Amino acid sequence: MSETATTEFDGSVVHPDLEYERKRCSFRIPDFTYALYGREGFAVLTKLRLALARNPAFDLRYLWSADGTTQQYVRGCWLAEEVVKVIRQLELIDRDDAIGPLQILAGEDMFVMLHLTMFLPTLKNMCDEEQARYWVPLAEDFRIIGTYCQTELAHGSNVSGLETTADFDDKTDEWVLNTPSLQSTKWWPGGLAKSCTHCVCMARLRIHDKDYGVHPFILQVRDLNTHESLPGVKLFHIGKKLGYNSMDNGGVQLHNVRIPRRNLLMKYCHVDRQGTYKPLGSKKLMYGTMTFTRKQIIMAAGPQLAKSVVIAIRYSAVRRQFPMTMKKHETKDSSRDAEVQILDYSTQQITLFPLLAAAVAYTVTGIWMDAFYNSFIEDAKKDDFSKLEEIHAVTSCLKAMMSLSVADGMEKCRKACGGHGFLLASGIPIQFVNFVPVATYEGDRVVLSVQTARVLLKIVQRKMMSRDPKHTLAGTTLEYIHNFDPFGDHQPPAIENTPWFDPDWLMEIHRRRSCGLVYKAAQQYAAETSSGKDMMEALDLVKVEFTRLGTAHAQVLVLHFFLEAVKRVELVEVREVWVDLWLCLALSWCDEHFGEFVITRALGPDHHDGLMTAFKTILRKIRPNAVAIADAFWIPDQLLNSALGRYDGRVYEALMESTKMEPLNRLDVPPGYLEHIQYILHPERKKRSSPAHSKL
Amino acid sequence: MSETATTEFDGSVVHPDLEYERKRCSFRIPDFTYALYGREGFAVLTKLRLALARNPAFDLRYLWSADGTTQQYVRGCWLAEEVVKVIRQLELIDRDDAIGPLQILAGEDMFVMLHLTMFLPTLKNMCDEEQARYWVPLAEDFRIIGTYCQTELAHGSNVSGLETTADFDDKTDEWVLNTPSLQSTKWWPGGLAKSCTHCVCMARLRIHDKDYGVHPFILQVRDLNTHESLPGVKLFHIGKKLGYNSMDNGGVQLHNVRIPRRNLLMKYCHVDRQGTYKPLGSKKLMYGTMTFTRKQIIMAAGPQLAKSVVIAIRYSAVRRQFPMTMKKHETKDSSRDAEVQILDYSTQQITLFPLLAAAVAYTVTGIWMDAFYNSFIEDAKKDDFSKLEEIHAVTSCLKAMMSLSVADGMEKCRKACGGHGFLLASGIPIQFVNFVPVATYEGDRVVLSVQTARVLLKIVQRKMMSRDPKHTLAGTTLEYIHNFDPFGDHQPPAIENTPWFDPDWLMEIHRRRSCGLVYKAAQQYAAETSSGKDMMEALDLVKVEFTRLGTAHAQVLVLHFFLEAVKRVELVEVREVWVDLWLCLALSWCDEHFGEFVITRALGPDHHDGLMTAFKTILRKIRPNAVAIADAFWIPDQLLNSALGRYDGRVYEALMESTKMEPLNRLDVPPGYLEHIQYILHPERKKRSSPAHSKL
Repeated sequence: MSETATTEFDGSVVHPDLEYERKRCSFRIPDFTYALYGREGFAVLTKLRLALARNPAFDLRYLWSADGTTQQYVRGCWLAEEVVKVIRQLELIDRDDAIGPLQILAGEDMFVMLHLTMFLPTLKNMCDEEQARYWVPLAEDFRIIGTYCQTELAHGSNVSGLETTADFDDKTDEWVLNTPSLQSTKWWPGGLAKSCTHCVCMARLRIHDKDYGVHPFILQVRDLNTHESLPGVKLFHIGKKLGYNSMDNGGVQLHNVRIPRRNLLMKYCHVDRQGTYKPLGSKKLMYGTMTFTRKQIIMAAGPQLAKSVVIAIRYSAVRRQFPMTMKKHETKDSSRDAEVQILDYSTQQITLFPLLAAAVAYTVTGIWMDAFYNSFIEDAKKDDFSKLEEIHAVTSCLKAMMSLSVADGMEKCRKACGGHGFLLASGIPIQFVNFVPVATYEGDRVVLSVQTARVLLKIVQRKMMSRDPKHTLAGTTLEYIHNFDPFGDHQPPAIENTPWFDPDWLMEIHRRRSCGLVYKAAQQYAAETSSGKDMMEALDLVKVEFTRLGTAHAQVLVLHFFLEAVKRVELVEVREVWVDLWLCLALSWCDEHFGEFVITRALGPDHHDGLMTAFKTILRKIRPNAVAIADAFWIPDQLLNSALGRYDGRVYEALMESTKMEPLNRLDVPPGYLEHIQYILHPERKKRSSPAHSKL
Repeated sequence: MSETATTEFDGSVVHPDLEYERKRCSFRIPDFTYALYGREGFAVLTKLRLALARNPAFDLRYLWSADGTTQQYVRGCWLAEEVVKVIRQLELIDRDDAIGPLQILAGEDMFVMLHLTMFLPTLKNMCDEEQARYWVPLAEDFRIIGTYCQTELAHGSNVSGLETTADFDDKTDEWVLNTPSLQSTKWWPGGLAKSCTHCVCMARLRIHDKDYGVHPFILQVRDLNTHESLPGVKLFHIGKKLGYNSMDNGGVQLHNVRIPRRNLLMKYCHVDRQGTYKPLGSKKLMYGTMTFTRKQIIMAAGPQLAKSVVIAIRYSAVRRQFPMTMKKHETKDSSRDAEVQILDYSTQQITLFPLLAAAVAYTVTGIWMDAFYNSFIEDAKKDDFSKLEEIHAVTSCLKAMMSLSVADGMEKCRKACGGHGFLLASGIPIQFVNFVPVATYEGDRVVLSVQTARVLLKIVQRKMMSRDPKHTLAGTTLEYIHNFDPFGDHQPPAIENTPWFDPDWLMEIHRRRSCGLVYKAAQQYAAETSSGKDMMEALDLVKVEFTRLGTAHAQVLVLHFFLEAVKRVELVEVREVWVDLWLCLALSWCDEHFGEFVITRALGPDHHDGLMTAFKTILRKIRPNAVAIADAFWIPDQLLNSALGRYDGRVYEALMESTKMEPLNRLDVPPGYLEHIQYILHPERKKRSSPAHSKL
């Protein structure tokens, strides 16, 4: 494995600090990479990296000085064109295992990605067979480009509150679509502004004034030949966002737009020529797109976090600040002044190493998630929906916890790079602003916590009513909740000989924390409802607790899947490093949520000293391997897009070089001087002052 | 007090939800405003608001669709010109009480602000009398524009590591300035790229090859007539940042730049014609600029946070989502469907109300900070430096805690606005990206925590060695650390009748948490040093604990000053609301840092249930006043610059209106279609495909 860095200067000279770090690590870097992605995953990555390498469309440095949405959107279109070429040439359209990595490797999200991850899956899930035969090939061949059009200006998570209407006109056998108010303006769909030709539009299905609720309709919005928007379809761009501006999120107002009756997607219901409405089959898979999208988010979380962590760790190995005498073992280069690599500071380690561990943990959790989702789909094809509840709970809590953790983690990485982290050329700001909406879309923490908690509380409820559902839970991610004995004597373990480095024991106290929170919330909720409160009101009273138990449960799952993965690592020298990372993550969460551990008696107040000692021991143990672990994510420089995170570590050269891209550096005397600054310095040059303030 | 909203549509029609909220509050909004800013502060604000109103330079909506750095910089220059006009016309140059609020009200930071808050104070502090007579009037009249030029590409917090040199040439009586390496390139000074004519440049003073360390030199960088950069002075813009792009942060490389001997600022040392170096007077005020700048940051923190909180609270009162039956008391408008104001949700309240309380608390802490700083300066003029240690500790820990808290708080507010919070037109993203560097510059959390901890540990040390310094600490912010008895029987209070609504008791447990962390860290540090470890190494081993005790100490101070302010509020109906806010903040910190409260025995594990019950009670109590409290910050719509936070609450109209500013909405078929999208839809239109991939 070698890095083909996007360099303007000689990339072959690696900074001696990084060279040293790579030599002194305790394992072979490629072995870690194989263990992380698996042989198959690694083969896919290799193929994709090759297809993208040296294609200037994937050189993302223009983002460092990106102008407004227009420039960025046009670049996004170029990126989209090249991505589609790669998909066509490598025949990836049906390869879910490749589309996800391709989305990450492309660097920027644009309309084509939503076409692939929302529009196409929705068609596959919502069309009846005849419809699928017509629409799916068109979408798979990009003869149409679509998006998923649901949220409205005033309506988000509450889908049943949507206002857009589709009225059946039995004279013409058509639906008439309208957004009847400002509030019902469709708002947010990615690609809808300028790129899409079609969308799946969610609207209230009405027949002869009877409202059947929200249903999916396929709606063409632009002419396939001219790309002009169609009559009655008022499309617009919703404006610049904090990030994610390669994506043209759009809005639409519909005025009596007519589409054929068969444009209602008819897998789960049927409306005939006479306007007779008939529900069809099991609705259990109706919200399949949402589960699919959350699964995709969970799969991407680890690699996304890794990008920022790799930058921060490499930079911290090159950046030096303040002397630290007596640290001879770290300072091997005696010719330099005695300033220390900032990665040697405990504060830097306690910030970055748990994030490094999380990046590995989330990556392997994502791989598990994908496999679990696929097995669920296989079962569903055989009409077996036994995993429905579990997959719902798992995707909800993992998406909520991981998306927030990654967004926060990126910002921590950025701050850990000091002042330079604030430059777009550092790479992390762009990663952060592009990723952070993930924490909101497809369900934010609150909405998803309620979903998770409902499933968990049901288990408690059933157990308390002695209806033992154990046989259905055995081997599932929910089993430990059932197995917990709320009436047991839950005293924190003795302080002496606390086994801080025993993964099974740490797993146990994490489970105890989670169960403690779940059973306590269940008790509170039961008390509120039995006191006569309405279900929604009682729910609001424990919602705060739900968000917390959702996080605790998600962390149990991540630690569990990570530990399973650790056990599967074959090479002992790699496995040892994974054990360190696992311990680092588990201990960091004990520290971060220490309050919850003591509340639930998983730990006692006096455990904190021992915890910190153990935590710091692991941090020091990881230190010599940190750069090598970062390397093992095998992220190309092109994707990091960072002057600070380059494989060759030549950060100062790269920063200096990056200033050449700044348009303001084209002129010595700037625009702004003649118009404004000269009048500050020389007010007499302006014959008369602006009348606006002369009266004050 | 009325709002002059920047509206395109009729601003006089206020959304009924907001109208209702404003009517039902328990106090008169202007009374709260007077209590918050004080009569004098309010008078200054009124004057400034009047001077800025209806001036199109202060209409910040261009930021919603801002293009690259050039456009934003030119707008920044316009803003600067207008700010200078206001300063000249209202004669504010010497009015520190007005410059701070003006900086906030202007909305965007640009070079003029650094001229006022860093360059000018440095001149005043570092010039000898003769130099001051020459330079200060020039700067005060904006005949020169300056900045503070210290950090280098590879050197930040460690000032003594700076590499830029100033060699004395006794033949010509000049200094010769050089940046001898890539690493020593000056990097970051705001305004240096394009705007400044001068700077205070920090460089190693060397005479006849003897290095006297880093000293301040005044250096002209651009011609006063043409604004062209001077020979040997290679100025450049360091590139686009995450935010703060109205400021032209720059870099400079110096090649044998000659300046007169008297351009060394000579208050704290003197170099004569022969090159004889003589230190002068007390160095205690040498780092005065830094203390001044931190004080300014502390003063701005509350108002900055308020901007985001006001937006999130007003929007949460207008936005409705999901029905919540049985909540009749909240739904007064029966004609609407039963969706609930999202501000009624406990999860929204627990996110926003502690931030609302913090915005008030930080504002009053800032006012205290200013007064304390001024009294320190008065003392210093009389050569009384008894408050030096305290002001150092106070500014360090408050700056560290508050800047992080405000940055995080803004992002929480943004997320609390759901998807729409991601739009630049929501206002919060711009506030966040502009504010977030404050957490890094002028000392980040780690650097400042070490400063704070050193002062606090010294108190413990003196006490433990029975050298009672109590007489010097009485009445100071450090006294409670001294008064703590580490050998006392610190058992958590009994669960029964815990006085959760008693501010004095809550103050006490916060102090106990802080003291517990301080004494524990002192003990650890002593153990490390007495085991023979080097001072720097021992320090690194407890640095993590230092960052935590720094936060705890800062929170004690904020709660203390806030409580003092509460007690001073005259009107009982306002004071009652302030008490609620105080309790909300104190309880939220108990919850957030519950682990630390149990570790230090300030609380026991079983207190958490009661804490949450009390916390939720206060949240519900604040709810009916929330919008009115937000209003009381009296922030003009122009400054909020938000479609979601408008005084009139017409958020959906404003969002729709904001899309008119998006350049991509000028054409139906976008740029990008002809170049790229058409070849995705119609690959046959491209005669031959790009050769780049044809081989794959």
